[in-house]
Amino acid sequence: MRKKVEDLKVVALAGGVGGAKLVLGLDHVLKPGNLSVVVNTGDDFEHFGLKICPDLDTICYTLADLVDTNRGWGLANETYQVSQYLADLDAPGWFTLGDKDIAVHMERTRLLKSGWTLSQVTQDFCEKWDIETKVHPMSDSAAPTHINTKNQGLMSFQEYFVKHQFQPEVVSVVYERVLDSSPSQAVINAIEEADFVVICPSNPILSIEPILRYKEIRDLLTEKKVIAVSPLIQGQALKGPAAKMYDELGFVPEAYTVLLAYQDFLDLFIYDELDDESFPKKKVKDIITSKAQTIMKTKADKIALARVVLEQGIELLGMA
Amino acid sequence: MRKKVEDLKVVALAGGVGGAKLVLGLDHVLKPGNLSVVVNTGDDFEHFGLKICPDLDTICYTLADLVDTNRGWGLANETYQVSQYLADLDAPGWFTLGDKDIAVHMERTRLLKSGWTLSQVTQDFCEKWDIETKVHPMSDSAAPTHINTKNQGLMSFQEYFVKHQFQPEVVSVVYERVLDSSPSQAVINAIEEADFVVICPSNPILSIEPILRYKEIRDLLTEKKVIAVSPLIQGQALKGPAAKMYDELGFVPEAYTVLLAYQDFLDLFIYDELDDESFPKKKVKDIITSKAQTIMKTKADKIALARVVLEQGIELLGMA
Repeated sequence: MRKKVEDLKVVALAGGVGGAKLVLGLDHVLKPGNLSVVVNTGDDFEHFGLKICPDLDTICYTLADLVDTNRGWGLANETYQVSQYLADLDAPGWFTLGDKDIAVHMERTRLLKSGWTLSQVTQDFCEKWDIETKVHPMSDSAAPTHINTKNQGLMSFQEYFVKHQFQPEVVSVVYERVLDSSPSQAVINAIEEADFVVICPSNPILSIEPILRYKEIRDLLTEKKVIAVSPLIQGQALKGPAAKMYDELGFVPEAYTVLLAYQDFLDLFIYDELDDESFPKKKVKDIITSKAQTIMKTKADKIALARVVLEQGIELLGMA
Repeated sequence: MRKKVEDLKVVALAGGVGGAKLVLGLDHVLKPGNLSVVVNTGDDFEHFGLKICPDLDTICYTLADLVDTNRGWGLANETYQVSQYLADLDAPGWFTLGDKDIAVHMERTRLLKSGWTLSQVTQDFCEKWDIETKVHPMSDSAAPTHINTKNQGLMSFQEYFVKHQFQPEVVSVVYERVLDSSPSQAVINAIEEADFVVICPSNPILSIEPILRYKEIRDLLTEKKVIAVSPLIQGQALKGPAAKMYDELGFVPEAYTVLLAYQDFLDLFIYDELDDESFPKKKVKDIITSKAQTIMKTKADKIALARVVLEQGIELLGMA
């Protein structure tokens, strides 16, 4: 008897806003507790002494139904009392900080300084927010992503992404590993137990590659059934600089480039049906390609795509 | 010709709420720029990753006319959005954090982490707040005060003072000096140039002694004309645990005990006129004693006491 979609155990690899959409869909389709999300922490940084984890927050706020759905990040019904007074003090205001968001950063910082790991803090927050899906930071040690730009030199991820709105031309991306940063055991366990690993339509360079830079994760993925959903549709990302960065780094900004980035371990690649004609027909290794309607505007879109991804996984990759 | 009161150069040693009252009075009486305040930083601490300097903030908020005059500390017209959400997260709420206050702590933390000294940060804030009086933290290095209690062991100053509302019985007070903490050169210069050093009616054990524990300051005071105003009136402090602590540490809780604490360098001791009959008549060294109406309820009270203190200084200690 074929396994039902909702009974699958799935690990999603995700970054921020783009990835969170499919994560929310998977969260709805799968049985409570059957989804684990491994979240990029390469964009974590310290600001005003506070530890800020933008991708973790976006995933958690989304799963807790607390997210500002207009922006796709941050908390709904935010106030900005602190930021207003920071502006009065001429403090840097390039990173948006809502009051409730600041409370989250403060409590996270307090717990980390008291000796908790980032995984423990995240688990604690998920319990408080009634999130049943397991959310794992990719690592408990720092692994910051830096962007080497043509005209402004090396900058931290958030400087590039938020302060400079990803306008500087990218020469290379540096994935720093502080103190031999390694993935947490919980991440490894989740992947080992998964029926499918789903790489969400997040930025391959900025959101997914930081996770894949862990050899332990990369090696493990070669043994698993891995499905990726393209974040590029008709040569464009719905949001963010994926296409621009591919272009600047010398790659063709299209879905096929994403497939090639994941070719070492990928089993099924799902591109958008709008790319049906342009997507190259030549086969890479044993990777199966498939199409779907991948643009997720509504919650129903997210749930529908999650179901399609898992159904195609069962149909094309098999499942006892 | 006798020097006019407003032309005096004065250094005030002060802690928080009690000291801020006389500091405000001195600020009004003296010419702009003629007052320097050396502020206790023994109660500074880190909370939620933010560097918090309660006494410095109280002095600055008071001088900038931003203080919540009902409490005597914190900013007026505060909001508590962050604290409300911290409570939702079950974060510790024993230390009151207004939103504007949090902005101050965040910007201070950011500047310190970027390499500024606490003196530089304080000066920057004073410029933004149009404070002409010079406000100096007693040191740029950490010198935390710890309280050794009878039944609950050693605790940090803020745990004792705010979290436990100074209820635990005190066995001893530990003035830690981190990394050979020394007073900043600006503090030394200000005292050297002063006509008078005024020890404000702050808690002698918790607010003034941390400053006096620097041998450089203590030695310097023996060469200066030093005036102290008693914080104890009829055996009671108007606010805070000064009398209770004296009692627990085996001292008589009265103004005379304060005089004795400062006897190594004191020239003039001013006690409240309510203590006129009870104040011992025996002379300690060459210290002159005098009385005044020292209870400061209104701004006029503060200005009046400041004027009396300086006039008595000129009259009793002389001034070219």
